[in-house]
Amino acid sequence: MTAVPDVPNTATLTISCPDRQGIVAAVSQFLHNHGANIIHSDQHSTDPEGGTFFMRMEFHLEGLARARESFERAFAGVVAEPLNMAWQVSYATQPKRMAVLVSRYDHCFLDLLWRRRRGELNVEIPLVISNHEDLRRDAEMFGIPFHLVPVTRDDKTEAEAEQIRLMHEAGVDFAVLARYMQILSGDFLQAFGRPVINIHHSFLPAFVGANPYRAAFNRGVKLIGATSHYVTEELDAGPIIAQDVVPVTHRETPDTLMRLGRDVERQVLARAVKAHAEDRVLVYGNKTVVF
Amino acid sequence: MTAVPDVPNTATLTISCPDRQGIVAAVSQFLHNHGANIIHSDQHSTDPEGGTFFMRMEFHLEGLARARESFERAFAGVVAEPLNMAWQVSYATQPKRMAVLVSRYDHCFLDLLWRRRRGELNVEIPLVISNHEDLRRDAEMFGIPFHLVPVTRDDKTEAEAEQIRLMHEAGVDFAVLARYMQILSGDFLQAFGRPVINIHHSFLPAFVGANPYRAAFNRGVKLIGATSHYVTEELDAGPIIAQDVVPVTHRETPDTLMRLGRDVERQVLARAVKAHAEDRVLVYGNKTVVF
Amino acid sequence: MTAVPDVPNTATLTISCPDRQGIVAAVSQFLHNHGANIIHSDQHSTDPEGGTFFMRMEFHLEGLARARESFERAFAGVVAEPLNMAWQVSYATQPKRMAVLVSRYDHCFLDLLWRRRRGELNVEIPLVISNHEDLRRDAEMFGIPFHLVPVTRDDKTEAEAEQIRLMHEAGVDFAVLARYMQILSGDFLQAFGRPVINIHHSFLPAFVGANPYRAAFNRGVKLIGATSHYVTEELDAGPIIAQDVVPVTHRETPDTLMRLGRDVERQVLARAVKAHAEDRVLVYGNKTVVF
Amino acid sequence: MTAVPDVPNTATLTISCPDRQGIVAAVSQFLHNHGANIIHSDQHSTDPEGGTFFMRMEFHLEGLARARESFERAFAGVVAEPLNMAWQVSYATQPKRMAVLVSRYDHCFLDLLWRRRRGELNVEIPLVISNHEDLRRDAEMFGIPFHLVPVTRDDKTEAEAEQIRLMHEAGVDFAVLARYMQILSGDFLQAFGRPVINIHHSFLPAFVGANPYRAAFNRGVKLIGATSHYVTEELDAGPIIAQDVVPVTHRETPDTLMRLGRDVERQVLARAVKAHAEDRVLVYGNKTVVF
Repeated sequence: MTAVPDVPNTATLTISCPDRQGIVAAVSQFLHNHGANIIHSDQHSTDPEGGTFFMRMEFHLEGLARARESFERAFAGVVAEPLNMAWQVSYATQPKRMAVLVSRYDHCFLDLLWRRRRGELNVEIPLVISNHEDLRRDAEMFGIPFHLVPVTRDDKTEAEAEQIRLMHEAGVDFAVLARYMQILSGDFLQAFGRPVINIHHSFLPAFVGANPYRAAFNRGVKLIGATSHYVTEELDAGPIIAQDVVPVTHRETPDTLMRLGRDVERQVLARAVKAHAEDRVLVYGNKTVVF
Repeated sequence: MTAVPDVPNTATLTISCPDRQGIVAAVSQFLHNHGANIIHSDQHSTDPEGGTFFMRMEFHLEGLARARESFERAFAGVVAEPLNMAWQVSYATQPKRMAVLVSRYDHCFLDLLWRRRRGELNVEIPLVISNHEDLRRDAEMFGIPFHLVPVTRDDKTEAEAEQIRLMHEAGVDFAVLARYMQILSGDFLQAFGRPVINIHHSFLPAFVGANPYRAAFNRGVKLIGATSHYVTEELDAGPIIAQDVVPVTHRETPDTLMRLGRDVERQVLARAVKAHAEDRVLVYGNKTVVF
Repeated sequence: MTAVPDVPNTATLTISCPDRQGIVAAVSQFLHNHGANIIHSDQHSTDPEGGTFFMRMEFHLEGLARARESFERAFAGVVAEPLNMAWQVSYATQPKRMAVLVSRYDHCFLDLLWRRRRGELNVEIPLVISNHEDLRRDAEMFGIPFHLVPVTRDDKTEAEAEQIRLMHEAGVDFAVLARYMQILSGDFLQAFGRPVINIHHSFLPAFVGANPYRAAFNRGVKLIGATSHYVTEELDAGPIIAQDVVPVTHRETPDTLMRLGRDVERQVLARAVKAHAEDRVLVYGNKTVVF
Repeated sequence: MTAVPDVPNTATLTISCPDRQGIVAAVSQFLHNHGANIIHSDQHSTDPEGGTFFMRMEFHLEGLARARESFERAFAGVVAEPLNMAWQVSYATQPKRMAVLVSRYDHCFLDLLWRRRRGELNVEIPLVISNHEDLRRDAEMFGIPFHLVPVTRDDKTEAEAEQIRLMHEAGVDFAVLARYMQILSGDFLQAFGRPVINIHHSFLPAFVGANPYRAAFNRGVKLIGATSHYVTEELDAGPIIAQDVVPVTHRETPDTLMRLGRDVERQVLARAVKAHAEDRVLVYGNKTVVF
């Protein structure tokens, strides 16, 4: 697999399909015939005796920039349709557009903005949405439009509609809840129609819901953690993308657990967002393949 | 704090009492007046505004071997009673006597026996009790009496009574369930009257009960763990002593999770047992202080 | 140990002295006699058969705010001098004043400023000194005076003199090299006369000096790390305060190692700086006790 | 990729060759044409702009058991020679034969024997070689022939010749130094002609050579580790396969570091040996790709 770092002609193909013999051969042969160089290739079979096959191929193809449509049409006809694939191609010149929703805690929020600024996170951040004013100044320091959408018990539906309107208008590809404290309604996900990544401040499935640090303190666990997952209708129950923990002792209080947990939260969320932005996360059932 | 490693005159004092000013002074002054050298000293307050105070002092006292009774009587009168302490003294010449209960999985069981043989774990193991024959030969290779006590749904009460009889007879100070697969009845704990340490093959409070590796597989967690805790009436709910995790990916199956988990289980159980054997674990409420 | 969180009357006493019997008793008795409540107490003996004894006691003493001098004089006379102690008292109302030196990499620098802003790091940051302009705007966004002190091979002595002048003028208690890329001369440490904490981007003592990520890449290690230590005359050889690692695979390049390493660097530096700020680090020989 | 777990017809193909376009296609097409099902596929390019390409394909092929020669001949002619590949096929029915060399420490040695007994490690262990008698009984309890080959400064050459003779006679595929304390001569590796895996009780490249725990203690590191690597002529300098660390504090002594380090050593060695046994380790330069 060889490639020259030539962004306009670099792309990532992700595939899932019913597992059967010959898929790797078909895809790599197709790419080879088109003169593509494979930069990275990953695959996974969920079940050796049938099941689902997942593949991610990052490749470089001279002239791809001008020939996307014909490339995709050819792939569909020659490989994807015969093999009954769900697939997509992401182009290196078009990073995903990510909305950040945040309430008042700044740690995950700032960490994401800063990673993007440093070039670690290859996304566009067209807007930040918050239900509080607190983080407006920080967003502006990063040059990102900040939209205040307050939420009260009575107007949740209107607030959500406004959030979705703002995100659709900005052509957002996915949203990140970076310690956004409001619970999204089931309708939200339907109406938004794009992936939503959340960070939950516990090691799921332990301590679902509110106040996980206090619950962890009461249980006397010796590790606390954070989990990043895709949001589904059921609270804190969606496909897990990344998790990590940190050891704690009897000396901790709920406050110090919260402090220690912050570092885990921001590392875990950043890892999950980066994986999603790079098309390395594929969902099946309520689980993920993370290449 | 200075001490000469002189085992007959070395002891560990553990204390818990209502927190108040002056406890450290009282205890250290008492020891100083008796000519004791403090080797290690640890303390913990559960709540800066009152609460419970815990202390562990390892000390050396010339002549202690011959004067235990008078030492303990003096301590009781001068310090413990005025300060309303629960306390005990463990003597280095008398390691705790530990029973091991195991079913068919050998990994935790062998790990404990081997650590003791190597001198890492300072306990006596007067007996092994199992509901299967599988591990008899291994126990005998370590020179430890093996007792088969089969358990069926109908005779659980008799089986438990036999286990307790064997352990009381052997003067056992605590029992370790080293992947012992039978659930102990509430009566057992009452009748046994000593601490029981269990290893549960998940990161509690996640995946309580049976088949936690399969449950972890289904949830798609990215870390699996093991938890060692004191057994209480409620299953997998007792005070946690030690926990650890290992990262896993989408490539794992329930079988490989079980394999990866075994290494975590034996490390965690060994850590908990060693802490208990060294009087470094103090229980309050449903939590532990682990010095 | 009981205390009311009453900052004006809270202090931390740190001690080191030749180990001998009776030190804990003497110190706790002194505090008790003065009506102090001990909040936290930690001690360590470097050698059970003699050696050095270290202690850290955080306490609350009604009226301390007005009686510091007499308290310290009493302690000196009654305890410290007879026991030949090196000691100091830090008062909760006077957080340490920390200078940050940084070159162009912003990750450790920003992480420290954020933590302080969030209240996690209890220090004053009176100034930032840099040999480049890059981070001026970031410092100003945090409201911290930024001083550009360029360094070239010819004027290192003048540059260092200027840095020291600035820091002495600002009453700085310690300096942090947050990926400050210039090597400090031996004279600097003498002239500055305060502790200097550095973050080195490898797991010392491996990969001392320049380009540790490239060296790690060439050696093919499967973990990379970061080390925070006190600066001494010998490069990267001073007492280690904190270290951590992250696993890496054959897939990494020197660039991705650098990216992965950044997260470790900032966590490790923050941990070390926080420990120092809280008087939890005591140096002996070329090593540290970190309570 | 689909496969039926049918051991006689399962094999693993490992490849390295100059990187170029079309390799994945060529190999997967070849396998597909022969009716093989790919179970697992991993690849790695050392350099996107040329360099070396590595691949490991685990596959199932009906009738392979009877047709190995023709399969290999076909692969050589159609794929390997045109693409200038170094390659080999391992057959699932023929686990590698592993010799264990050990001195007096039993922890790594016992851990390997247990794992094999439990079915975790798919190797044959035809013999154990030791320069001391201590572990004979343990080897015999596992039913493995134990050979005492004493080594003194004068007779090292003869001792090594005897070790190699024993291993060649037993058809050993690789040797594991499981805390074997003698340093092998450069001639040994030449004469043995097979891979040798060592466990070094430090985090290389720190603390090469003897007494790494004491060296770690003196340096005051806050993590200790272990490294498993292929043995080369230069001591502790060969390609690293696996590493891990455990945190330590100022409370440790060289003895407790040794105790804590043992658990890391055995985990790391087991991980490396398992990877090698499963053909997941490919060497290039002085580094490894570990699939």
